[in-house]
Amino acid sequence: MNFSKRIVAMQESPIRKLVPFAENAKKQGKKVYHLNIGQPDIETPENFMNAVRKFDEKVLAYTFSQGIPELIDALITYYKKYNMTFEKDEVLITNGGSEALLFALIAVADDGDEVIVPEPFYTNYNGFGAAVGVNVVPVTTYASEGFHLPSRETIEKVITPRTRAILLSNPGNPTGVVYTKEEVNLIADIAKKHNLFVIADEVYREFVYDNLEYISFGNIKEIEDRVIIVDSVSKRFSACGARIGAILSKNKELMKQILKLCQGRLCCPTLDQIGAVELYKVSDDYFKAVLEEYQKRRDIVYEGLTSIPGVICEKPTGAFYVIAKLPVEDAEEFVIWLLKDFDLNGETVMLAPAEGFYATPGLGKDEARIAYILNEHDLRKSMEILKTALEKYPKKK
Amino acid sequence: MNFSKRIVAMQESPIRKLVPFAENAKKQGKKVYHLNIGQPDIETPENFMNAVRKFDEKVLAYTFSQGIPELIDALITYYKKYNMTFEKDEVLITNGGSEALLFALIAVADDGDEVIVPEPFYTNYNGFGAAVGVNVVPVTTYASEGFHLPSRETIEKVITPRTRAILLSNPGNPTGVVYTKEEVNLIADIAKKHNLFVIADEVYREFVYDNLEYISFGNIKEIEDRVIIVDSVSKRFSACGARIGAILSKNKELMKQILKLCQGRLCCPTLDQIGAVELYKVSDDYFKAVLEEYQKRRDIVYEGLTSIPGVICEKPTGAFYVIAKLPVEDAEEFVIWLLKDFDLNGETVMLAPAEGFYATPGLGKDEARIAYILNEHDLRKSMEILKTALEKYPKKK
Repeated sequence: MNFSKRIVAMQESPIRKLVPFAENAKKQGKKVYHLNIGQPDIETPENFMNAVRKFDEKVLAYTFSQGIPELIDALITYYKKYNMTFEKDEVLITNGGSEALLFALIAVADDGDEVIVPEPFYTNYNGFGAAVGVNVVPVTTYASEGFHLPSRETIEKVITPRTRAILLSNPGNPTGVVYTKEEVNLIADIAKKHNLFVIADEVYREFVYDNLEYISFGNIKEIEDRVIIVDSVSKRFSACGARIGAILSKNKELMKQILKLCQGRLCCPTLDQIGAVELYKVSDDYFKAVLEEYQKRRDIVYEGLTSIPGVICEKPTGAFYVIAKLPVEDAEEFVIWLLKDFDLNGETVMLAPAEGFYATPGLGKDEARIAYILNEHDLRKSMEILKTALEKYPKKK
Repeated sequence: MNFSKRIVAMQESPIRKLVPFAENAKKQGKKVYHLNIGQPDIETPENFMNAVRKFDEKVLAYTFSQGIPELIDALITYYKKYNMTFEKDEVLITNGGSEALLFALIAVADDGDEVIVPEPFYTNYNGFGAAVGVNVVPVTTYASEGFHLPSRETIEKVITPRTRAILLSNPGNPTGVVYTKEEVNLIADIAKKHNLFVIADEVYREFVYDNLEYISFGNIKEIEDRVIIVDSVSKRFSACGARIGAILSKNKELMKQILKLCQGRLCCPTLDQIGAVELYKVSDDYFKAVLEEYQKRRDIVYEGLTSIPGVICEKPTGAFYVIAKLPVEDAEEFVIWLLKDFDLNGETVMLAPAEGFYATPGLGKDEARIAYILNEHDLRKSMEILKTALEKYPKKK
């Protein structure tokens, strides 16, 4: 009995496949600092659970396929802060940013079509692409250039008659890059010239450091009918378990098409939508405090990493990740060793090997992604552990 | 700018597209009895919200991609009642039965592959099929035969080299059919002979009337590696808004493949899973009471319908739907008329035109699906309204 070719072609999550090693380490009594996943330790604003707890209808019923009106309104208000005006039929609530991404791919590309993605990229782009037969075509970006985009020529070189969209995350996961105004305009220009959609994964919108200017693809008027924004409450409000995302576009006809997909899966969870409405009522102080916290963490990790001999990384300016080149041949082997064979006073760290973030074979083999999602103390400890580990690692380059 | 062919090919939800007419009717002050959707009025067991309210972790974090262990265990225990033994890696929690269905299709079929489905069928089979490029090939069943399956020859006639699975709901939505042991064995036999998967949508498993024997495809040992069960808490516990479903199969290798899809979308909502665990702790009395209630409703609707001149329907034996042939040319037109131009003392009913449940063009045009999900009083009222409406309808056949 054969499975589909597409599901067999799907890569196993390069992050999640190392989980058993971490579990074994914990069984042996080791403490593991998880820098491998984007699960922040920031508290979810209390008003989420307060709203959920108040739910007192007798029947937990289906809600609207497009999302509950209160949540759509909350998003419309939120986007105004960023100078983007969306109407009610230009917003659809989804099961996390994941479903928004999946629906965007299905809506713009058929089996065998192509979507251009700067690499390294969020691995699930590849996963969802494979699941629905869309080929992810990489454009490589480099740590030494802070993972900024290559030239127009380099990007245009990979465009074919089957290219349907450019997909990118800004701020970038796993790179921590924040694209400049020039880069955003370059992508807009290429999209226009070659008649492509731009799928803009902006779930880390709030996480931009050093007072850098942030330009959303939703701010570029000339391509507003080509832009599909993928959004989520997961990182913004540290509410990953709510699984509430959204897809937004000024292209009303496109949104009508995507609504059919929403109708197919009936609706998003009722309670989580009710909670999410309240999340959008937090004050600006919340965002400010969280941003300060992450910027501090970024600095600790950047300082820590650059003080380790042989580790190379650029200072990230957004999201809460950094990709570091390690003085090892194979970062995955190193991570397994960290979990299986190493500890510093009973503690170790877990990183995400970066190879899985690249589509081009061979790239990223000596790189790892570090998520700075733990508190100051734990991060300092983690950097110390990593430093010691790299001193002791027998297969150091 | 072009959208994908697949999304354009997706049918708009034939049920949801009439919603604006219902909303207008309500704005005019009419009361609308909704017999058009499978949203039961049965109360969700209180222990769902009780468990959710108790959640007191500071961070609403991601959970396991495969589902929380407590819920997987709850399902394993539940299935034992039905003489099915599943291990932990044979159960995956999904975002409703919808996602289970989508994942099953992706896992067994590639773009252009075919899945055989007895029609009339749950319209979203078609929707999801279109979204991921899988062709739904219908085998027609008839009201006059209680929507039971046709002969082996009729089914085998539509099998081609691209057929990958037989997909069917049992008990049937929208037909209310419960397949006999012979029918289940026939499908099992065909699947084995032609090397096909069986995707068994059994979300209405509890809703079987008249003490009829119910055979799950999971009970057929000889094809256990071919059976993929789609399940959900939505109808079982009247918890549609929780969006918690599951996919189960004894084919461990298949489940490993589907796990990749689960990892891609990270996890299902945390709170709803916690609530769902408690749902599975309700006593057998709960199921008994609910079943009695629905059987009573079924009887009221069946009696009501058969007392209306010109209406033809068989007594359904499962789920909570019945398909009725109406004495009208076009059931959709009739439903719009019911909402726009008719009322009995300020009240009207909404049905689901059945044409959208068929893949074969022209079929079901004079049929409608009625969901008996309201209380006794409202159902009696609805039947009275429908009877009067059909007397007054100007375009009666």
